[in-house]
Amino acid sequence: MPKISYVNGRYVAHGQAMVHMEDRGYQFADGVYEVIAVYNGHIIDEEPHLERLDRSLGELAIDWPVAMAALKFILRQVRRRNAIKYGNLYLQITRGQSARNHAYPDNIKPVLTITGRTIQWPTRDQALIGQNIISTPDLRWKRCDIKSVSLLPNILSKMDAIAANAGEAWMIDEDGMITEGTSSNAWIVTGGGEIITRHLDNAILAGVTRRAVFEIADRENLNIVERAFSLAEAKAAQEAFFTSTTALVKPAVRIDDAIINDGKPGPFTIKLLNYYYDYLDQSTV
Amino acid sequence: MPKISYVNGRYVAHGQAMVHMEDRGYQFADGVYEVIAVYNGHIIDEEPHLERLDRSLGELAIDWPVAMAALKFILRQVRRRNAIKYGNLYLQITRGQSARNHAYPDNIKPVLTITGRTIQWPTRDQALIGQNIISTPDLRWKRCDIKSVSLLPNILSKMDAIAANAGEAWMIDEDGMITEGTSSNAWIVTGGGEIITRHLDNAILAGVTRRAVFEIADRENLNIVERAFSLAEAKAAQEAFFTSTTALVKPAVRIDDAIINDGKPGPFTIKLLNYYYDYLDQSTV
Repeated sequence: MPKISYVNGRYVAHGQAMVHMEDRGYQFADGVYEVIAVYNGHIIDEEPHLERLDRSLGELAIDWPVAMAALKFILRQVRRRNAIKYGNLYLQITRGQSARNHAYPDNIKPVLTITGRTIQWPTRDQALIGQNIISTPDLRWKRCDIKSVSLLPNILSKMDAIAANAGEAWMIDEDGMITEGTSSNAWIVTGGGEIITRHLDNAILAGVTRRAVFEIADRENLNIVERAFSLAEAKAAQEAFFTSTTALVKPAVRIDDAIINDGKPGPFTIKLLNYYYDYLDQSTV
Repeated sequence: MPKISYVNGRYVAHGQAMVHMEDRGYQFADGVYEVIAVYNGHIIDEEPHLERLDRSLGELAIDWPVAMAALKFILRQVRRRNAIKYGNLYLQITRGQSARNHAYPDNIKPVLTITGRTIQWPTRDQALIGQNIISTPDLRWKRCDIKSVSLLPNILSKMDAIAANAGEAWMIDEDGMITEGTSSNAWIVTGGGEIITRHLDNAILAGVTRRAVFEIADRENLNIVERAFSLAEAKAAQEAFFTSTTALVKPAVRIDDAIINDGKPGPFTIKLLNYYYDYLDQSTV
């Protein structure tokens, strides 16, 4: 449990980390967020997270509540005050507080909240445990490229996954193509060794871990193809995995009733997972 | 401005009406709401509002935070403590507070917040001012039958409407059909005197004012047809209007570049608007 959280200019005991009921984040899902990993005391991929945050804010015409340099300082303060060596930082910016009305006033001031938590990252061995995936219709809105707190469909599908003893749900669009997981990007590997993940469009988030995997693949001469793929193609794939700041790289060994790679993480997935752990280790030196 | 609001068991000064930053309403849009009119001191259509609330909660498997009888008592208290004769009550129920995670724990306790505001309802003459409508793609999720706080697409479209000097935006689905307004149901009237509004499906909310208009039409032998209608059909319609708890019945006299009924509210709209004011008056005796 966090000890100290940040609410709009003040570091407060987490139990007193309160926002107003007329904060538009609460009444309209009018806000954006980022989750950033802390690994060996280091804030991982801070720049791409804050660049994405800047884009999300821009798309919604929400102002920055503080300068980016100030935000970096506050993130470090929250990490330090909670003595987080391994864990994550959660930051949220909402449009601010005003009398409830769909329209918002010109002079509204954005609200920034940040928490930090210690979490135990899985060891490389633990990370190799294969996950089940269920497929589910993608019920979300049409701007999932914006990292907004409008996450109700995501949580409904996540709960369905948990009820089915699955680690993630992959969402299927109206064309039968997989968009992404409820909180991760989806990947498959073909028999020919092509690593496939959906191209960036309005239906998926540009994952920061996805981006790191691209960097790794480029360096290691692995072949990533960005294109939509169907549920049927995923079920018949050689390997499957998913990525996120929290999941890192997780092997998927079953999609609905289809067993992937005899139920074991495949060689490309294992390779990427280890490279990603190397990437985390290298980010902290 | 409300003086007294209700937050989870307590009546508090509105400025102190705070919820925790890890309330899932704030971080996941994991909550539902109702807006209920107060007219001449009476709470209008309380039963259908609370029935709809019960359905929204059920669809999301959120527990009732208090018994329905207790909620009715609290609504009256908020009305009374804010001395609201004409205005509205806003009530929200979120899934509750827990450490941030898409999945929620079994034992989570829902959070109830209520505010009340005095507002000046338009007179019948003011209500007859014709509104412009813009059309906009429906970006929302696929369960708009649930009255959730996942309203980000609605507010973006509402701001587009305001920028275009329009009173509402009508949202168009992928088949070119109008779903509803950003905070109201959409209606047209054909040359043959058919009053058309979209059938209830997952793309629209079952409006409580929509329901009242059905009651009125039934009593007055007006012919309502429930079916989807296209933007093109709306632009060519004899009359157009929209309904909501806050908008009551509002005439639309322009849709994008199409002038409706020479820019004047039509006879069916005026009739329904007056009947609806009668309905409000009758609800308060």
